[in-house]
Amino acid sequence: MSYHAWAAPAAGASFEKQSPSRDPLGPDEVEVAVEHCGVCHSDLSMWQDEWGMASYPAVLGHEVVGRVTAVGTHAKGRSVGQRVGVGWNCGSCMHCRSCLSGDQHLCDEVQPTIAGHLGGFANSVRADWAWTIPLPEGLNVADAGPLLCGGITVFNPISMFATPNSRVGVIGIGGLGHLAIKFAAAYGCEVTAFTSSEDKFEEARSFGAQHVVGTRDSAAIEKLEKSLDLLIVTVNAPLDWDAWIASLAPHGRMHIVGAVLEPIPVSVFPLLMRQASVGASPTGAPVDMADMLAFAARHNIAPKTEHFPMSQINEAFAHVSDGKARYRVVLDADF
Amino acid sequence: MSYHAWAAPAAGASFEKQSPSRDPLGPDEVEVAVEHCGVCHSDLSMWQDEWGMASYPAVLGHEVVGRVTAVGTHAKGRSVGQRVGVGWNCGSCMHCRSCLSGDQHLCDEVQPTIAGHLGGFANSVRADWAWTIPLPEGLNVADAGPLLCGGITVFNPISMFATPNSRVGVIGIGGLGHLAIKFAAAYGCEVTAFTSSEDKFEEARSFGAQHVVGTRDSAAIEKLEKSLDLLIVTVNAPLDWDAWIASLAPHGRMHIVGAVLEPIPVSVFPLLMRQASVGASPTGAPVDMADMLAFAARHNIAPKTEHFPMSQINEAFAHVSDGKARYRVVLDADF
Repeated sequence: MSYHAWAAPAAGASFEKQSPSRDPLGPDEVEVAVEHCGVCHSDLSMWQDEWGMASYPAVLGHEVVGRVTAVGTHAKGRSVGQRVGVGWNCGSCMHCRSCLSGDQHLCDEVQPTIAGHLGGFANSVRADWAWTIPLPEGLNVADAGPLLCGGITVFNPISMFATPNSRVGVIGIGGLGHLAIKFAAAYGCEVTAFTSSEDKFEEARSFGAQHVVGTRDSAAIEKLEKSLDLLIVTVNAPLDWDAWIASLAPHGRMHIVGAVLEPIPVSVFPLLMRQASVGASPTGAPVDMADMLAFAARHNIAPKTEHFPMSQINEAFAHVSDGKARYRVVLDADF
Repeated sequence: MSYHAWAAPAAGASFEKQSPSRDPLGPDEVEVAVEHCGVCHSDLSMWQDEWGMASYPAVLGHEVVGRVTAVGTHAKGRSVGQRVGVGWNCGSCMHCRSCLSGDQHLCDEVQPTIAGHLGGFANSVRADWAWTIPLPEGLNVADAGPLLCGGITVFNPISMFATPNSRVGVIGIGGLGHLAIKFAAAYGCEVTAFTSSEDKFEEARSFGAQHVVGTRDSAAIEKLEKSLDLLIVTVNAPLDWDAWIASLAPHGRMHIVGAVLEPIPVSVFPLLMRQASVGASPTGAPVDMADMLAFAARHNIAPKTEHFPMSQINEAFAHVSDGKARYRVVLDADF
């Protein structure tokens, strides 16, 4: 199969259809024919080189669903025709302490799918076998893409730090936040959604939030003092951090999954009096991703998506860039 | 027994011997004849009203060891003659969620021993029965006082977040820090001590640190990148927080037990890439304190102390205030 991709020739430039040459498939690699690929906010960040990690022409896209079309000579456990997902990462060293501990996403040499690698806005994508996650039966395939990055990013802290008794807050009801509500609700938690958009209140409830509070409603947030066990921050904007730490219950955790660029000023006394913590995490490891997909399939969880044909990638990026996505855009391959 | 105490009539004023009147012993209270009482840095902070919580005349002292001389009508499990310790807290509501969960130290109504209450620089001190911790056999009684506040403050994060496989760092080798080294070493951890005082290097090793690094030795700290599982911060001074977060291993935790007054600027990316966290905790609950004392007795752990007769409390405070304590001052009651 000849290779075609949508590539940005420079930072922020329109995507063009290109056919870059690729090396032969590596021994640990699996090649996946892309069926669908979600557009994540980090695709926009990389496209505009906000983090200084991009190289051009850039083939982005890291929420891939597709079928295996070829397996490398050393690839394990994958076979042609199998349906798999590929997320933020597409490889790791597999021999360091983190990799051998099941924390492959924390490997020092972890390979992001869209930095120094050709991503999923293409007719095929390659990833090391361990990072191609088999999709379970019963999963909504067309909409599963956003689970591979947005989904695992919010599922991971819930599975690590919440129990069904937990009171979970979610700040920001976008691509990540709406999945956080769905996962936490299905986990059996009491969920409070925080959003600055009043037009999302009802929809947040429909995702499973028992309570919805305006992010700027200081009085309502103050009333939540010491009531949240896990507060998942999905937004990048600076917040009134003192107020949010005050909302943490004893042993509570504020957990950041957004790429907050400014340092967060953490006041020690309120943290100390609650025996609380502030943490952060990036996506998840392959086993975490498999668990997340199985959980999503069992609980019938899918992101709320809008679909564009991949040939309309430029329109799709404009839509996401304008903040219009409700809640996650998926591109359907139409090469 | 008539009541005598060393009281500061105003912020930072010399202690004077006074005989304030007290109400009859409360039903849940236990009265303890003070034998020894440690001087903690927070006694100095309260003495100088750094936190705006003090009232005068102030009877300070919250690292008490003594014998029970009277028990209230509803007090449970304590008997006259029993040797007990009293630490930072002397009461809690006993019916809230935190109290019923064994987190009495996180009770909203927790009563500090030296704020709005008469502390341990006296011939007797009172505390609710649950907060009088029976001393185990084999404990070094004369030096046990500092375990009741300094000891539990550092033992608690070790018991919550370390295993014998953990690589534990301790910043600041003073009253708390030297106990943190001893506890972590006895826990079986690999311990790195950080101190700005070169004259403490050898002694830190004698407490059980395998490695000692200067707090200002940026090159040495940089080499520790991603190597510490638990980093206990016992100092109050602002630090190069980015460098310390960089020293955390995957899943690492920087844990603050010092009363750091300025907000800590936490950079999210380094935290996120490590799936790490920043937390804090205050002292511990009665059961934690009992476990800590039992552990200290089994492992023959005692603070390194200097003793003053209680009648030399002013000289003792000057000694601590001047930073001369090596490593904890204990006052021996001589009424």
